[in-house]
Amino acid sequence: MDSQLSLFYGLSFLTVVIAFAFAVYLYLWVKKQKTVNAKIQTVSALIKEGANTFMRREYKILAKFAAVAAVLILLFLPSPIWQGDPVPNISMAVAYIAGTVLSAIAGKIGILVATLSNGRAAEGAQQGIKPAFLIGFRGGAVMGLLVVGCSLLGVTAVLMITGDSSILLGFSFGASSLALFAKAGGGIFTKTADVSADLTGKVELGIAEDDPRNPAVIADNVGDNVGDVAGMGADLFDSNVAAMASALVLAQSLGGGVNISMVFCYAILGLLASVIGIATARVGKNGNPTRALNSSTYVTTAIFLVLTAGATLLFEGFSWRIWGASAVGLLVGVVIGIATDYFTDDTKPIVRKVAHASASGPAFTILSGVSYGFISALPAMVGIAVSALVAYQLCAPMGDGYAIFGISMAAVGMLSIVGMIISNDAYGPIVDNARGLAEMGDLGEETIRTADELDSAGNTVKAVTKGFSIGAAGLTVISLLGAFMSEANHALAEAGKELITGFDIMSPTVFFGILIGAAIPAVFSAMLILGVDKNAQRMVAEIHRQFNSIPGLKEGREDAKPEYDKCIDIATTGALRELIPAGLMSIIATLVVGFIGGPQAIGGFLLGNIVSGLLLALFMSNSGGLWDNSKKYVESGAEGGKGSEAHKSAVIGDTVGDPFKDTAGPSINTQITVVSLVSSLLSSLFVMFNLFG
Amino acid sequence: MDSQLSLFYGLSFLTVVIAFAFAVYLYLWVKKQKTVNAKIQTVSALIKEGANTFMRREYKILAKFAAVAAVLILLFLPSPIWQGDPVPNISMAVAYIAGTVLSAIAGKIGILVATLSNGRAAEGAQQGIKPAFLIGFRGGAVMGLLVVGCSLLGVTAVLMITGDSSILLGFSFGASSLALFAKAGGGIFTKTADVSADLTGKVELGIAEDDPRNPAVIADNVGDNVGDVAGMGADLFDSNVAAMASALVLAQSLGGGVNISMVFCYAILGLLASVIGIATARVGKNGNPTRALNSSTYVTTAIFLVLTAGATLLFEGFSWRIWGASAVGLLVGVVIGIATDYFTDDTKPIVRKVAHASASGPAFTILSGVSYGFISALPAMVGIAVSALVAYQLCAPMGDGYAIFGISMAAVGMLSIVGMIISNDAYGPIVDNARGLAEMGDLGEETIRTADELDSAGNTVKAVTKGFSIGAAGLTVISLLGAFMSEANHALAEAGKELITGFDIMSPTVFFGILIGAAIPAVFSAMLILGVDKNAQRMVAEIHRQFNSIPGLKEGREDAKPEYDKCIDIATTGALRELIPAGLMSIIATLVVGFIGGPQAIGGFLLGNIVSGLLLALFMSNSGGLWDNSKKYVESGAEGGKGSEAHKSAVIGDTVGDPFKDTAGPSINTQITVVSLVSSLLSSLFVMFNLFG
Repeated sequence: MDSQLSLFYGLSFLTVVIAFAFAVYLYLWVKKQKTVNAKIQTVSALIKEGANTFMRREYKILAKFAAVAAVLILLFLPSPIWQGDPVPNISMAVAYIAGTVLSAIAGKIGILVATLSNGRAAEGAQQGIKPAFLIGFRGGAVMGLLVVGCSLLGVTAVLMITGDSSILLGFSFGASSLALFAKAGGGIFTKTADVSADLTGKVELGIAEDDPRNPAVIADNVGDNVGDVAGMGADLFDSNVAAMASALVLAQSLGGGVNISMVFCYAILGLLASVIGIATARVGKNGNPTRALNSSTYVTTAIFLVLTAGATLLFEGFSWRIWGASAVGLLVGVVIGIATDYFTDDTKPIVRKVAHASASGPAFTILSGVSYGFISALPAMVGIAVSALVAYQLCAPMGDGYAIFGISMAAVGMLSIVGMIISNDAYGPIVDNARGLAEMGDLGEETIRTADELDSAGNTVKAVTKGFSIGAAGLTVISLLGAFMSEANHALAEAGKELITGFDIMSPTVFFGILIGAAIPAVFSAMLILGVDKNAQRMVAEIHRQFNSIPGLKEGREDAKPEYDKCIDIATTGALRELIPAGLMSIIATLVVGFIGGPQAIGGFLLGNIVSGLLLALFMSNSGGLWDNSKKYVESGAEGGKGSEAHKSAVIGDTVGDPFKDTAGPSINTQITVVSLVSSLLSSLFVMFNLFG
Repeated sequence: MDSQLSLFYGLSFLTVVIAFAFAVYLYLWVKKQKTVNAKIQTVSALIKEGANTFMRREYKILAKFAAVAAVLILLFLPSPIWQGDPVPNISMAVAYIAGTVLSAIAGKIGILVATLSNGRAAEGAQQGIKPAFLIGFRGGAVMGLLVVGCSLLGVTAVLMITGDSSILLGFSFGASSLALFAKAGGGIFTKTADVSADLTGKVELGIAEDDPRNPAVIADNVGDNVGDVAGMGADLFDSNVAAMASALVLAQSLGGGVNISMVFCYAILGLLASVIGIATARVGKNGNPTRALNSSTYVTTAIFLVLTAGATLLFEGFSWRIWGASAVGLLVGVVIGIATDYFTDDTKPIVRKVAHASASGPAFTILSGVSYGFISALPAMVGIAVSALVAYQLCAPMGDGYAIFGISMAAVGMLSIVGMIISNDAYGPIVDNARGLAEMGDLGEETIRTADELDSAGNTVKAVTKGFSIGAAGLTVISLLGAFMSEANHALAEAGKELITGFDIMSPTVFFGILIGAAIPAVFSAMLILGVDKNAQRMVAEIHRQFNSIPGLKEGREDAKPEYDKCIDIATTGALRELIPAGLMSIIATLVVGFIGGPQAIGGFLLGNIVSGLLLALFMSNSGGLWDNSKKYVESGAEGGKGSEAHKSAVIGDTVGDPFKDTAGPSINTQITVVSLVSSLLSSLFVMFNLFG
């Protein structure tokens, strides 16, 4: 191990310690904020308990899945254990488990802090927007710091101990397995509860969104936490690890040394920039929380660019070209965020057009939302295409293999500010919960209004962070394609076969893979949406049962208590039951294509998967956000306001959009990453056994 | 010209004469059927006049577009006219015009016969299902025979006169230009009228679908003709010509001779098989028209396979491998049809599930329809992937270049029965019109029931033919990708540059093209759907105006006549205004990608376009068919029947599905073909001028 690399390992651990220490400080700060309202404490405890129940059961199932996967890894990966040295197999199995465990820990603590913050943010809102914002944001920032800290810790440790970057793919696969459960499972949970609560409460009974009479209301609040805090955190943990892992695999195939140091340097500086951005986030004089969230993101971006430019100046061997590639990645991330905002913000024309179309009936809400959702995919697709092209062209002159390494550094650059992104994202469910708690705790009109304002900022920023995370996944997976080729060539070289130099579209084997790969994200999303659908039907039936069998519940009698836990139970069981077939389908399709067409077909399969996955993920996330905000826009009084025909149509649009934007859309990222990693991990098997390859 | 080829040219012309003669016979047969009901004659004449108005104005705009395109072709294609021999440029411009004109003639006569048949079929239904079926089917068959006859005539003439297969791309581009107008324009027209008529009639006033009080009712019937007869005909003319053209370009690059003869032989036998299939189509003893349509398709398929097997036996140089490739293509077409049927037929579980979900509200109609729509794309994508792989593997042993030629022969095979397919498809709008005319002409309950049965068969078969035409377009475009490479290499060789051997996914230029290409079909469909949306709003306003300003119209007073022509005018003007931006967007995107990234980026662009285009076209066509039939299933009494909550939801689903299945979905085919042909035609310009290629 050269001394420069040792230095960076050391710096990496040091940064992780700083991030964790800062997270502990924020946790203690949030904990010390006062909470006095007994009702809020009770409900907040119910939410916490519900979230823990889901996480516990999710982790239990995941543990079984992970155990099976770990045994399979031990036996077969990177190559069958009976064919030689068992050490890589053991390392990879251990790395895989470490990936799931670290991500699970981050998720668990994130949920703990989020459920600690929601009630405090609600009570803080009595003092005004500034303290409430700070409680919500800092509660979310704990999750942000933990996710990035744990991912950097894991990657550094695995590489330092094994010295073999391909073991990182095992670690990354562990993170992906967890993300699949957390994101898709959490997504089904949250939308089951949300849709059922809306249908029975708002639509059937005409009661408020967070009315405590509704048996699904706690499940709905739990859902926000498990879907957006734990799910989104696991998703970005996964993307971040995958970006680093693929960059490191490519760096090692370029001979290691300074290239590996560079990946660590950029990751470290990204985390430090996020720490500074988080520490300085405040609601300014104008009291606008959206601006506070956005400006702290821009501050983080600027700090990262300056710090990495400094590092490039100071260290020998660091190249401006690599810096340029990572800067392009980061800037495209910001552009995608802005474009998403244009399509989903209710101060911009698109949301208003959809609201206007709603006045003609629900079919027009759907048709216009679908159309703008499709169009909204264009800027992000062009952005990713251009950033890949520019990063490649920038780094190609550095020598063979550097071009694709440049793309991987663009992904690392885009994900550098992920700590900040997750903080913003986790802020959303905390203040969303706070809004509900303010209502349930009878904190008064003004406090609810303050909480509403915080919540609305959370919604706006959520759309942006989703666009960002999809873009990041897109770039990451391109570099994973490079990592796959590098792994496959390793196996081909060992088998004494001809190496892969690329994947030609005109080859029917590649084309075969492309077409099937393109169909998978569509089928995967459909399975998740149908899962929400089925599960919501079960929960609606349960709510009806409670309304009919618990005397006085509908009327709101003091002594009539809904059985919240029954709804949480349905959401939990159903979510886990519905997500497994979708996850297995993607993995089995990968195996079928690989064993039929070999590595060439898999190259095509990954490409088709990325392309249609990006398109559908952007379409679903954006159209969902668009419908959500159109509904809110109508509720604010436009097109006849609440109770108008336009409102009824907009509510239907929002219900369609819910599983689009919170279940299927963001889960596609994870599906793509899982499939890419499975392919890389199994590359040697696909080389050895295939029909037509 | 060798003697074998001359023989096939001769046979080709002879077959065209047979097809035309048979079409004339069918036309005279239909004309001689009696029509006595004055009301039907009046309305039928109105429909005819409306269709002619639309066609005239469409062709007028198209003529301007075609004139500009022809001048550009003359100046620049195949290479700038000032750089050498002007003859190829003149030939290509003339071939282009011939392509538009032949397709326009087929469409024009098809509409003439369809509008002649509808009233006769309505009156025939008084005599029973058998005669009415025959009138509807034979009326549609005229269109089928004309389309295939004109395409074969054009391709044969162009190749015989010029001897240069690349001039065929100009002919094919002419056909595509017309198809873009006819399919997308007709699609916007038909759905504008359909949606507006439903919204104002069925939803607002609660009157029947074909109630003559509704000012949009004639426009709706006109729409069936211009969308499904002329539009679908132009679409399949386009696909058929493109399949033959790309097969012939590849055959010529293989040295011509027997390969060219083989393409003609298969096309001739396909047309003959369709003639026999059409001639023998009858409703059997059981009186089931769906079975009659399907069995004549199977008869045609079987005849084609037997005839081509015979040809392979008899002629020297004909290969079983090529026969196998075309058989695989044809069989996959049939499989796609069956899969489509499974997802859209109301005797199968999927339609019933969506109907059941509708009972929980419109959001569930949409969510379940979208989900099954996504899943329904899988079998077709797998089918196309497998057929391409098998055709390639079958023909690869024949030598260099034969593998991709094999894929083009699979496309030719799939399209061989296109005459039969169009006949089935054009049958749909004729009997749909007949149903409306039976109602308007007061022909009595039993006649309406008979017409209903014929109409329902038309709907079922329509979904199947759409799946078929999308599949055919998919395979055709793969061979167009081959044709593009062959053209680009021609230009590269002339420029003394390195030839293209393929398009590598790992090249960022190719990848850049893929991502942008994948976004185009989404944006294109969105523009068309928004076009229908805007246009329908205009027409609804006009209908409201008429109801409010024409005394007695709403109440159905005898003397109150709606102004049908105003609605036809709105649909016409709007359709043509809305389609042009969408068409131009696709072409401009092709130019931008080509001039930025050169031929490599275009290769990627075409691939991305095909892949996402196939996925979206299948999704939209199938989900639209699914919603349509779910609504019909509910109307037949399921889930509470007409007027129930499930019915209201199902109607919303159907309204969303209308522009999906009849405007955007089937127009994507044409968009893909147009973009592929523009790319092939401009390949030499992209080779000469580009930024990064």
